[in-house]
Amino acid sequence: MMHQQQVLISPLHLPVVSQEYLNKLRQKRVIALAMEYIKDDAGAFPLVRAMSEVAGVSAILIGAELLSSSRGYGILLGGISGVPPAKVVILGGGVVAEYAARAAMGLGAEVRIFDNNIYKLSRLKRLLGNSLYTSSINTPVLLEELLHCDIAIGAIHSKTGRTPMVCTEEMVARMKSGAVIIDVSIDQGGCFETSEITTHANPTIVKHDVIHYCVPNISSRYAKTASMAVSNILTPIFLKAESEGGIESLFDEHSGLRHGIYTYKGCLTNHYLGERFGIKSTDLELLIASRL
Amino acid sequence: MMHQQQVLISPLHLPVVSQEYLNKLRQKRVIALAMEYIKDDAGAFPLVRAMSEVAGVSAILIGAELLSSSRGYGILLGGISGVPPAKVVILGGGVVAEYAARAAMGLGAEVRIFDNNIYKLSRLKRLLGNSLYTSSINTPVLLEELLHCDIAIGAIHSKTGRTPMVCTEEMVARMKSGAVIIDVSIDQGGCFETSEITTHANPTIVKHDVIHYCVPNISSRYAKTASMAVSNILTPIFLKAESEGGIESLFDEHSGLRHGIYTYKGCLTNHYLGERFGIKSTDLELLIASRL
Amino acid sequence: MMHQQQVLISPLHLPVVSQEYLNKLRQKRVIALAMEYIKDDAGAFPLVRAMSEVAGVSAILIGAELLSSSRGYGILLGGISGVPPAKVVILGGGVVAEYAARAAMGLGAEVRIFDNNIYKLSRLKRLLGNSLYTSSINTPVLLEELLHCDIAIGAIHSKTGRTPMVCTEEMVARMKSGAVIIDVSIDQGGCFETSEITTHANPTIVKHDVIHYCVPNISSRYAKTASMAVSNILTPIFLKAESEGGIESLFDEHSGLRHGIYTYKGCLTNHYLGERFGIKSTDLELLIASRL
Amino acid sequence: MMHQQQVLISPLHLPVVSQEYLNKLRQKRVIALAMEYIKDDAGAFPLVRAMSEVAGVSAILIGAELLSSSRGYGILLGGISGVPPAKVVILGGGVVAEYAARAAMGLGAEVRIFDNNIYKLSRLKRLLGNSLYTSSINTPVLLEELLHCDIAIGAIHSKTGRTPMVCTEEMVARMKSGAVIIDVSIDQGGCFETSEITTHANPTIVKHDVIHYCVPNISSRYAKTASMAVSNILTPIFLKAESEGGIESLFDEHSGLRHGIYTYKGCLTNHYLGERFGIKSTDLELLIASRL
Amino acid sequence: MMHQQQVLISPLHLPVVSQEYLNKLRQKRVIALAMEYIKDDAGAFPLVRAMSEVAGVSAILIGAELLSSSRGYGILLGGISGVPPAKVVILGGGVVAEYAARAAMGLGAEVRIFDNNIYKLSRLKRLLGNSLYTSSINTPVLLEELLHCDIAIGAIHSKTGRTPMVCTEEMVARMKSGAVIIDVSIDQGGCFETSEITTHANPTIVKHDVIHYCVPNISSRYAKTASMAVSNILTPIFLKAESEGGIESLFDEHSGLRHGIYTYKGCLTNHYLGERFGIKSTDLELLIASRL
Amino acid sequence: MMHQQQVLISPLHLPVVSQEYLNKLRQKRVIALAMEYIKDDAGAFPLVRAMSEVAGVSAILIGAELLSSSRGYGILLGGISGVPPAKVVILGGGVVAEYAARAAMGLGAEVRIFDNNIYKLSRLKRLLGNSLYTSSINTPVLLEELLHCDIAIGAIHSKTGRTPMVCTEEMVARMKSGAVIIDVSIDQGGCFETSEITTHANPTIVKHDVIHYCVPNISSRYAKTASMAVSNILTPIFLKAESEGGIESLFDEHSGLRHGIYTYKGCLTNHYLGERFGIKSTDLELLIASRL
Repeated sequence: MMHQQQVLISPLHLPVVSQEYLNKLRQKRVIALAMEYIKDDAGAFPLVRAMSEVAGVSAILIGAELLSSSRGYGILLGGISGVPPAKVVILGGGVVAEYAARAAMGLGAEVRIFDNNIYKLSRLKRLLGNSLYTSSINTPVLLEELLHCDIAIGAIHSKTGRTPMVCTEEMVARMKSGAVIIDVSIDQGGCFETSEITTHANPTIVKHDVIHYCVPNISSRYAKTASMAVSNILTPIFLKAESEGGIESLFDEHSGLRHGIYTYKGCLTNHYLGERFGIKSTDLELLIASRL
Repeated sequence: MMHQQQVLISPLHLPVVSQEYLNKLRQKRVIALAMEYIKDDAGAFPLVRAMSEVAGVSAILIGAELLSSSRGYGILLGGISGVPPAKVVILGGGVVAEYAARAAMGLGAEVRIFDNNIYKLSRLKRLLGNSLYTSSINTPVLLEELLHCDIAIGAIHSKTGRTPMVCTEEMVARMKSGAVIIDVSIDQGGCFETSEITTHANPTIVKHDVIHYCVPNISSRYAKTASMAVSNILTPIFLKAESEGGIESLFDEHSGLRHGIYTYKGCLTNHYLGERFGIKSTDLELLIASRL
Repeated sequence: MMHQQQVLISPLHLPVVSQEYLNKLRQKRVIALAMEYIKDDAGAFPLVRAMSEVAGVSAILIGAELLSSSRGYGILLGGISGVPPAKVVILGGGVVAEYAARAAMGLGAEVRIFDNNIYKLSRLKRLLGNSLYTSSINTPVLLEELLHCDIAIGAIHSKTGRTPMVCTEEMVARMKSGAVIIDVSIDQGGCFETSEITTHANPTIVKHDVIHYCVPNISSRYAKTASMAVSNILTPIFLKAESEGGIESLFDEHSGLRHGIYTYKGCLTNHYLGERFGIKSTDLELLIASRL
Repeated sequence: MMHQQQVLISPLHLPVVSQEYLNKLRQKRVIALAMEYIKDDAGAFPLVRAMSEVAGVSAILIGAELLSSSRGYGILLGGISGVPPAKVVILGGGVVAEYAARAAMGLGAEVRIFDNNIYKLSRLKRLLGNSLYTSSINTPVLLEELLHCDIAIGAIHSKTGRTPMVCTEEMVARMKSGAVIIDVSIDQGGCFETSEITTHANPTIVKHDVIHYCVPNISSRYAKTASMAVSNILTPIFLKAESEGGIESLFDEHSGLRHGIYTYKGCLTNHYLGERFGIKSTDLELLIASRL
Repeated sequence: MMHQQQVLISPLHLPVVSQEYLNKLRQKRVIALAMEYIKDDAGAFPLVRAMSEVAGVSAILIGAELLSSSRGYGILLGGISGVPPAKVVILGGGVVAEYAARAAMGLGAEVRIFDNNIYKLSRLKRLLGNSLYTSSINTPVLLEELLHCDIAIGAIHSKTGRTPMVCTEEMVARMKSGAVIIDVSIDQGGCFETSEITTHANPTIVKHDVIHYCVPNISSRYAKTASMAVSNILTPIFLKAESEGGIESLFDEHSGLRHGIYTYKGCLTNHYLGERFGIKSTDLELLIASRL
Repeated sequence: MMHQQQVLISPLHLPVVSQEYLNKLRQKRVIALAMEYIKDDAGAFPLVRAMSEVAGVSAILIGAELLSSSRGYGILLGGISGVPPAKVVILGGGVVAEYAARAAMGLGAEVRIFDNNIYKLSRLKRLLGNSLYTSSINTPVLLEELLHCDIAIGAIHSKTGRTPMVCTEEMVARMKSGAVIIDVSIDQGGCFETSEITTHANPTIVKHDVIHYCVPNISSRYAKTASMAVSNILTPIFLKAESEGGIESLFDEHSGLRHGIYTYKGCLTNHYLGERFGIKSTDLELLIASRL
């Protein structure tokens, strides 16, 4: 998605980014923006939100497919009279969790949400109904629910690096045979000790008789919807850029947009990537200031 | 509630009716109607429905009270962020169950309904939401849910005498210590093997550390509401009686009203009561026909 | 699912039944019951209802999968802020339609239901919300909606043989490229002129750039859920049979159960199957009467 | 609504305010407050919110009336079994849009909401249901929906002057004959190129066969409700003024109240009005400071 | 709506039908069917249902309009924060009441429904929410609610002639000044003693300061919606007639259709109309039988 | 709940705290934290919120119990067909009010909420449905509703000391005989002039025939639920304390935790308690700074 010769706006999936990739961007003196680091005027990350909405619904649809007879033990998520609904355990209380819970409940499943942030839980109860099961992450309570669940979803987002590993291998080993884990948090390492990155080509692995789906960037499964969500966010930026003399001039005014830049005209400007790949990183603000 | 000298319309609580009572009615040649046997023009029992609505809500309110610290282990039915909701198991899928489920869900509890009639379960899912847990009465599934529940409600109505005893003493013995059983079906013997009739004065007994509430005619706890519901049904009858020359003339036209009569001018006309108390019963239709 | 030596209760999928199969049953003098023809005491078909519930939800899950990037054009059913929801057109207003609509709406899609029975439409509006789009099957209105839809579901059930073919090939040809047809009615011939029976192994065909899924008996995709629903219905029958001296004695009392029989001790008793396969059929009532 | 001799608190409808009016206020040395500019302690505009709630519901009621046979083509907004619901397109995602959408959905219509702010759209989905149609303002998508809609509502609020003109005359010309436009944004110029201010006496004009309702200050149609909403906001101010020595002393403490003042003892203090009417404006803070 | 030379299918509004009209039909030997008397195969009146749905929503929209400042005291039905919602009293618990209640609640008003049929009330609570206010028609309770209401709707349908007059003039006289009565039952005489038939040209009269809207056939206000609803019902009849050799041949098979006939080739066949207009009526079944 | 020798974290119920108690804490040089004064990182009071959720639901359950025949006039909160629902008036629009309203509505009662903050009312309408009755605290409107209510709940929280006394004795005197007041605000003095602190042993007093329940700290009635809510908040603190070298070291980093301290190693550090009990208070920040 090259806007001009030298500006690249694209997702930056941490698990797949490589040193070579970063070096090429620097050699070509590209200004590269990671869509997921762009902030809006309110300081929030609009793209992360949109992709989280898609990911949450996707996780349930994938789980439903993996429970069907063609793959799993032939359980429908719910809603059938006289047949107890399937149980879905969701780790995390953010946007992924909200949309996963909505979709699961919409299909008639029974949902349990675990998070340690009481405000997130309280918000979810408001949105999804007062009898929603919410709990703080209390290991014995969580284990009890994992033992009986059909789908477990990892949806914890860490602001500062690696997702906390909430479910040990021992806990996974005690889950029902044929149950499904969808670890949406796999981009940040995952919430389950048994999670390992998989691919769209071979999306699942089985451990302890539990099917694991750990494809990073799960929302790409609904590429058109995802790209419409992306374009909802980028289009106003491009329109502004056009009317205000190029995208570079936007950088001066919009610190949220600057926040997305990780290579700038030959320099790596993202401290975290620098550390990870052993490349010296430069402060973007200095670079831009020096340009003036 | 004597309408004229010789007509009595009142509830007839089977568990408390006595031979003496019936004999007195016969000696006084009273025409006695059991409100719960009166049918409306559609062949349904309006009073039973109304009392069942009241009983269902009452059962949950009593359960909530018995779980409070003043009596029980201090659990609120639900709705609190981060605290898993209380679990309510309901045996039966009729009107009592519907209203108990509604009230429990309204307070934020998690409800499981067990019945063998798939149409009743399907109807409840429609009324109460598609993700309502319904199950046929499958003993292992029921036991699993009883083990974890905070309140168990007996709400099975038998058309032909005694409620099926769905929960054995052994199952009750495995329930949580401090859990509560409200056996609304106690009027017909109860759904729990451990149920014994109790009174408004001493409403609970404890067996296997489980609190049992087995007061018959539970709806009398909300006497004014119950009597308004009764008067909604009887008032049109009385108004008609007035305008059509006395209540007796109504009997000729309304077979549903006749269906409520159990003593008629000295005769016992209810076959079931006759068998139970060893009194000869006479066919009402013959009596009325002979009067003409 | 042989109950005794000579009694077979199983689904009878019309599209796959063969003359050989029927002849074998007759040679072995089996009493064969088609589960989908068993009536309950209220004259309704409990198994058809249960399988319809499963089929309705399945149809939406399959449609969602076929719209994903791995198969289709990468559209998520709905719920994403700022991205218009996918459109689902449902032909028919019965139980399959109800459960498909529920699942689609639960996932955030926009649903249109077409049926000529105003009471069914009115019932669906009550169940699914007053702003549900319902329409009589008016060709221009239907065409307009088909042109814009992402998933079209055939869910018309014919009581008397073949489903009416509501969508012509010309209409299908004008649908969006990449759209999906799930023809649940395929067991009865289908509602789309372009429908052809497919299999679980090769479930889809593409015509006019529209993906068709026409696997009969769609509910078998959730085999465990379906079998639990079946056992909810059959278990009480078996229990009764056991306590009342064998399943044959049940036939005398339960005309609904008799209604399911299609071969009886060497005779074909289903008139429709007789006509179709050129086998002489005998009236069951006569056979049973003659037995006494 | 004169509180004391010299203080006027009233709505200031920009489209109707005149130079004469401002001059009179200055000659009489009135302290004039525009209710819509008063801020509460949280920096929000409580009166604008209240009037927006009223305006949103009003817009739908007016639209419904204009679609009735007495004025328009005789379409009911929705809810009738078998008759597709009317379509309502709403431009904007704020409070007016929320209340218009609520009312339209409450009457059974199908609603589409267009806004470029993804957080507003996400919030509306949460409030009004997950299958609400929301879209960014994408001209082809919008045009498609306008072509089929029965009511289009302009509900975009501009913080800085004129509403963006989202619908061109060409788009309006392609709308259905007899469709209705309610341009609530008319106070700020309107969202439709064809909008022109109308009056309560002659509230509609017809262009391209589309009925336009463009009466400014639409909430005055429900005067009593609007005035109760106003008094909910002003009463606490007056009560405070009384107990704290007159309204002027309130100005010192409450910057939100000061924010409403546009003439102060002979001076125009609102910069925008000054520019518009060519009157010199003075900074209020200086005036008040100098008074001390 | 002449199908063939001699068959007329149209609504028959009892309040406006005249002897002249009937005589003309007889002279022209028309077979005239009253749409509202046509029964479907289930014995229900599909047209009455459809028109009742329209009438219920219409009543609320008209009430809302009459409460606006242009006509009434300027009250919005509801939904505004901090302003108590308007109160709507509905007499009757059928389809008109259901749709009026739905629309009123959709707009945020507070609804009270009065009916003596407890099953209708119970059904409405299920459909519209458990906290819906329902009451039997108890004069003191009704009076109390009428005193405080903003809109009162007469929606009682009598199967056998005249609507019961539930509200006396004295009760109306005590209603709020400026309140609105919409008497949908006016076609059958009305539920309010003060009701008098009005016309679309002059739709309201004022008595005791209460605005009365008593236009018969209220659904004609949404003519296109009403005619779509009608055509949903008639189209299948016409299609059948076409394929089965003319509409007359349909009469032989469909007793529900015959039920709609009131003049048949020169004879009046509706007993009630005969009595009212002093015309001899002939039994239709005899006429048709004699034709064969 | 002593964490270490010298640290006490417990609720500090203002109405029951005594000078002796404070002196003992000082003598023992305890660091005492009031749980209700601990702030989280967002500056909110998590424990107050959790206890308010419990208190809101509790208030309705207690009210329901006091209305039952065993205590009061035998009214069920609601939901019974044909019996008008009970009326609940709630003073205040915060978390207690929200949860009380939710529970009351869940049981089928009719709720009226009074508050002067229009944003709180608007928020409650969003959460609890658009037809929720909300009103600013307008004395005549409030009186009218109090006259007809069955339960009145005081749920106003004052940030700065005493709850405003919204209901005078005269207003209480005009309430229905047998009505119930639950004054949750009693900890801060109560909203009703007639409120007096009661105890769990003797929880009610009767004044003017109105039953008053004024037990402070109402949430202790559901002790286990309350303690789970507390532990949800404290557990992360303790875990952190453990891993970071004792709870005292946490004080340095977490100003929200410091905010809860009222005695610190011999000193009273809460200014308000100092004034009330005539004890000199010391600034905590100084004490901690001096320690370093």
